[in-house]
Amino acid sequence: MQAARLHAYGGALVLDDVPVPTPGPGEVVLAVEGAGFCHSDIHVIDGDLQVLSRMPMTLGHENAGRVAAVGDGVDTVKEGDPVAVFGGWGEGTCDYCVSGNEQLCVAPRWVGITGGDGGFAEFLHVPHERYLVRLRSLQPKIAAPLVDAALTPYRAITRSLDALQPDHKVLVIGVGGLGQYGIKLLRILSGCEVIAVDVSSGKLATAVQYGATDVVDGRGDRVAEEVMELTNGAGVCASFDFVGSDQTLDLAVRSTRTLGKVVQLGLAGGSARLKVLDNAKFEVRFETSLWGNIKELREVIALAESGVLSPIEMEFAPLTAINDVYRRVKEGAVDGRVVITP
Amino acid sequence: MQAARLHAYGGALVLDDVPVPTPGPGEVVLAVEGAGFCHSDIHVIDGDLQVLSRMPMTLGHENAGRVAAVGDGVDTVKEGDPVAVFGGWGEGTCDYCVSGNEQLCVAPRWVGITGGDGGFAEFLHVPHERYLVRLRSLQPKIAAPLVDAALTPYRAITRSLDALQPDHKVLVIGVGGLGQYGIKLLRILSGCEVIAVDVSSGKLATAVQYGATDVVDGRGDRVAEEVMELTNGAGVCASFDFVGSDQTLDLAVRSTRTLGKVVQLGLAGGSARLKVLDNAKFEVRFETSLWGNIKELREVIALAESGVLSPIEMEFAPLTAINDVYRRVKEGAVDGRVVITP
Amino acid sequence: MQAARLHAYGGALVLDDVPVPTPGPGEVVLAVEGAGFCHSDIHVIDGDLQVLSRMPMTLGHENAGRVAAVGDGVDTVKEGDPVAVFGGWGEGTCDYCVSGNEQLCVAPRWVGITGGDGGFAEFLHVPHERYLVRLRSLQPKIAAPLVDAALTPYRAITRSLDALQPDHKVLVIGVGGLGQYGIKLLRILSGCEVIAVDVSSGKLATAVQYGATDVVDGRGDRVAEEVMELTNGAGVCASFDFVGSDQTLDLAVRSTRTLGKVVQLGLAGGSARLKVLDNAKFEVRFETSLWGNIKELREVIALAESGVLSPIEMEFAPLTAINDVYRRVKEGAVDGRVVITP
Amino acid sequence: MQAARLHAYGGALVLDDVPVPTPGPGEVVLAVEGAGFCHSDIHVIDGDLQVLSRMPMTLGHENAGRVAAVGDGVDTVKEGDPVAVFGGWGEGTCDYCVSGNEQLCVAPRWVGITGGDGGFAEFLHVPHERYLVRLRSLQPKIAAPLVDAALTPYRAITRSLDALQPDHKVLVIGVGGLGQYGIKLLRILSGCEVIAVDVSSGKLATAVQYGATDVVDGRGDRVAEEVMELTNGAGVCASFDFVGSDQTLDLAVRSTRTLGKVVQLGLAGGSARLKVLDNAKFEVRFETSLWGNIKELREVIALAESGVLSPIEMEFAPLTAINDVYRRVKEGAVDGRVVITP
Repeated sequence: MQAARLHAYGGALVLDDVPVPTPGPGEVVLAVEGAGFCHSDIHVIDGDLQVLSRMPMTLGHENAGRVAAVGDGVDTVKEGDPVAVFGGWGEGTCDYCVSGNEQLCVAPRWVGITGGDGGFAEFLHVPHERYLVRLRSLQPKIAAPLVDAALTPYRAITRSLDALQPDHKVLVIGVGGLGQYGIKLLRILSGCEVIAVDVSSGKLATAVQYGATDVVDGRGDRVAEEVMELTNGAGVCASFDFVGSDQTLDLAVRSTRTLGKVVQLGLAGGSARLKVLDNAKFEVRFETSLWGNIKELREVIALAESGVLSPIEMEFAPLTAINDVYRRVKEGAVDGRVVITP
Repeated sequence: MQAARLHAYGGALVLDDVPVPTPGPGEVVLAVEGAGFCHSDIHVIDGDLQVLSRMPMTLGHENAGRVAAVGDGVDTVKEGDPVAVFGGWGEGTCDYCVSGNEQLCVAPRWVGITGGDGGFAEFLHVPHERYLVRLRSLQPKIAAPLVDAALTPYRAITRSLDALQPDHKVLVIGVGGLGQYGIKLLRILSGCEVIAVDVSSGKLATAVQYGATDVVDGRGDRVAEEVMELTNGAGVCASFDFVGSDQTLDLAVRSTRTLGKVVQLGLAGGSARLKVLDNAKFEVRFETSLWGNIKELREVIALAESGVLSPIEMEFAPLTAINDVYRRVKEGAVDGRVVITP
Repeated sequence: MQAARLHAYGGALVLDDVPVPTPGPGEVVLAVEGAGFCHSDIHVIDGDLQVLSRMPMTLGHENAGRVAAVGDGVDTVKEGDPVAVFGGWGEGTCDYCVSGNEQLCVAPRWVGITGGDGGFAEFLHVPHERYLVRLRSLQPKIAAPLVDAALTPYRAITRSLDALQPDHKVLVIGVGGLGQYGIKLLRILSGCEVIAVDVSSGKLATAVQYGATDVVDGRGDRVAEEVMELTNGAGVCASFDFVGSDQTLDLAVRSTRTLGKVVQLGLAGGSARLKVLDNAKFEVRFETSLWGNIKELREVIALAESGVLSPIEMEFAPLTAINDVYRRVKEGAVDGRVVITP
Repeated sequence: MQAARLHAYGGALVLDDVPVPTPGPGEVVLAVEGAGFCHSDIHVIDGDLQVLSRMPMTLGHENAGRVAAVGDGVDTVKEGDPVAVFGGWGEGTCDYCVSGNEQLCVAPRWVGITGGDGGFAEFLHVPHERYLVRLRSLQPKIAAPLVDAALTPYRAITRSLDALQPDHKVLVIGVGGLGQYGIKLLRILSGCEVIAVDVSSGKLATAVQYGATDVVDGRGDRVAEEVMELTNGAGVCASFDFVGSDQTLDLAVRSTRTLGKVVQLGLAGGSARLKVLDNAKFEVRFETSLWGNIKELREVIALAESGVLSPIEMEFAPLTAINDVYRRVKEGAVDGRVVITP
């Protein structure tokens, strides 16, 4: 079968011919129908995030498709079932794995990154049925981005619900694919009004369409002041920074009220700096949030199945176009999400 | 001024002529524009809940209006300001008062119940400015029911957010005024689909209008079975019982999944009974929820001001009609809320 | 090898000769050095809890020993390693399993109960290495009771820490093996003073020795009044009921302050009944707590390894004495824990 | 009466003769018996923290004494009662005040800092009885340091209990008065072993005496490595930084495991910097913790009254010696706490 593999950081993905995987006991093989192309794939390909456990490696960690074959002892899915694939695989015995947070495993085996080959291929090997979430009515290619672009903000937001008090607004910095799902999920899971900041007018328009009540153009030189004015000087109850540069993290910290929460999502980015009586109010809480766990993915998929969470803008591209997709995402030419359909 | 006072349990409210209150230092007097007539007023008038600290007592604990006079040292409101009145006043020094839960005070001084005279009168004496929530654009008579009918489910729901996992449904039993706000708030604060149970077809229709995705007629003899079928046998993640009879509490317990939560709202009602391996699944959590606190009321008012929380059906009646209102609410002839407009 | 198996509820355990288990891939076989005899074994043998998934079944769910053989792919333990065995095995894919609470699995496979054969045998088959907690310096036979008698109160207490406010006392009802570990753990994990209730003077003496600051003889007719007097009428901040009869649950509910927590531990027992303005104060929370999870067992073992948690009184008996042990535990003739040493 | 007042940053305290305060309605005047001299007094006197709301100001925020006079309407204390004084006074209506966190008030009126005159005087004016915690058997001069030196770590620790998992160690940086109470409280409220870091051998010895299980000399050049070795490379589950310099905050962040928590206590100090895949593991949480609230002070006093929390080393000095005390504390010549006894 064909698989888009990285052979060296800084190189292009290569469409290699590789064997179709077969499932061992308890394992599943999937015919991939959708594999989201994520901004972090850019960081990996370019070598900014040198986290691959080996090369060549088939990338692709936002996967969905149909069960093609199951190994002995697999009970919960059968051939032909449409499924989304949880990607934060772990080694299964560390503190985080046994506590239901495999994605935080001390020796992570994330699909398409630090573990098995990913979904930019015709078939995907999945080492355990617990990683599969059955789809009821969602098409796999529509479900694929939920596995990261929706799951990541979902975890960040649900772990911050105590801060989301609707007599205060919330701040979203960065309105790419994750930020777009972030805005939608904030409106679903809280009563807070949302201030969105981005450097693209188009993305600010998307933010409003998805539920933001206020937008601030991040290219201005009064961004922090405008956010404070929009909160009547109180600050927001929580800030979600999907960009994670030194500048955006400082904006997030400065904008957040006493006892409020600042969350940095994802891996790439700058340093957060906090100093009381300087840029941080009393007892501001800061945390990074990384992807999500299996149970959280089940919840995200359920939100999408029930129609409560509608999809962001998507476009679809064949596997052969993947290096073109890489280029367009890197140039910022994609507003929502591109899903590879091998 | 005129005030509707109870002189004896089981008697009617009497429209007495009483002096207009004046504010001492730190105190405020309000011209009442709306005072919600609550189902618990029925229980008090009838003597089912003999909780009044004295008689005659002016009832009315869901109050809003305009500031008529302020005492020395009042900073945060001025004459003419429209405000809603938090009603769960406390003595100010007990564990619950100093922790921000005055409504749970060990020696409660709830307005119109165990403390000062209530809002079924032209003017209302408020012992501290912290009990007032300023209104931005809401009319006081529209805001009045928020003080109890919306605040009570708001507290119950926000304290249960960890249980509200959107891959499972949630159960609401009883679709009166509180249940109606309950359904609206569940849709605002969680992604869960809502099953509503009531014995009135009209109220089930209202439930659907306000966001319930499934309804079960409580008059049937397969109610528990129907709820389980609607959850594919899994049970709901949380049950909110606004009725609180022995029967509804048993339904709430039986319907709730492992680690789920059952909340009984309000004071009147039956006994909850829980037995593992009998009517309760593993680690089901049960709690009663009583009214709400000042900060929670600020949040509820903010939800209404921003338009996120729209009002339930309301009708308005003059103070002179109050005994007629009593009769109609008792007979179940009112679908939403009656607000007295003195 | 010899195994003590139940062939019929109400019968005695039979010492059968059965094959020594062998480990498949990912599995482990243990030479049992200690298997605690738990009060719930009595309920199962007598048929009060008819929960066995099959018969004959080797009982014994509090197990520790040394690794005798490992299957392919087992990385974290090797032959000869001393280990304690987590017993709340699950099917691995349900909501509770993937969230780190296998003991609450919807189709539980608890060792010696609803799943594989238990530890009242020379060897024990363990289906996955994640169930093993390596021992550093603890002897396996001393560690065995930690798996249930200490783990169960540990989970109940750690999930109640928000209620354990040291300006209020806490109530423990029932000072058997679990209650004894409960008292020790309350003193380790909170600053609260502990009131212990039991019907045995000997157990009350043990309670004091393990850290209880007050004791109340449960045979008196002023038990609830005495508890209230010991709290100056305020009630305790939390009640842990290790007995779980209708009477003790009512005592637990009545004794608990507003916003406090009542926890029933384990499976057997009566019904909890709660009614506001009757036996329950405002917003009292009730929950049942069932065993514990893998991570919690790691924490309990760590407490014992560091010496912070010292063992309760134990006695040791050979497998051949098991029916005698059954009789003595049933008669209440055992103060702490009997550990079978096959 | 005599009062030690600051007239200008950088100057000495001046013993001025000022009028004895008298209580208005609801207010209380105290004869001060103990007023702790806190390290933050140094920062204020020196002008590093220019937070005084006016000058001259009587400093002293760790106060206890006996009620000398009460105003009208004061119910909960009477003349002669020994009391400790909560010091984080607020304006009473902001979000934090009505939620039970007056110390975080948006317009704080902290005693001896941003509000009324403090306790370095013969008498102290207290604006509301809710700020007083009655003492049962503790001497006021022993209780005084609990108001800050014990309360501050108590809040920080109780808000971090979910992170304090006893299969991992916890880190304390800085073993001054607050750090000493911090170590004691960690041993009371968790089962975790404690690693203490300080640059003074004497303070490390005190740390061990108060319950630290490991110490690391902060003057070494392998401090971070030694902490990691003491945790077998896993990192600590939580770090409490009582110093708060750039260097100690970086040590705290680096030493903390995935999902662990870093808490910076108090106001003075450096900047925290966090960057994933650099100095911070996955989902490390950072927060600053500031003083404590009224309910938490009640809990701390209760711990001391019951003997669970024993006092740290104290010495006592008359008001006339206060500038000498200033000098000795600044030089680091005081191991525990100096309490002024006016």
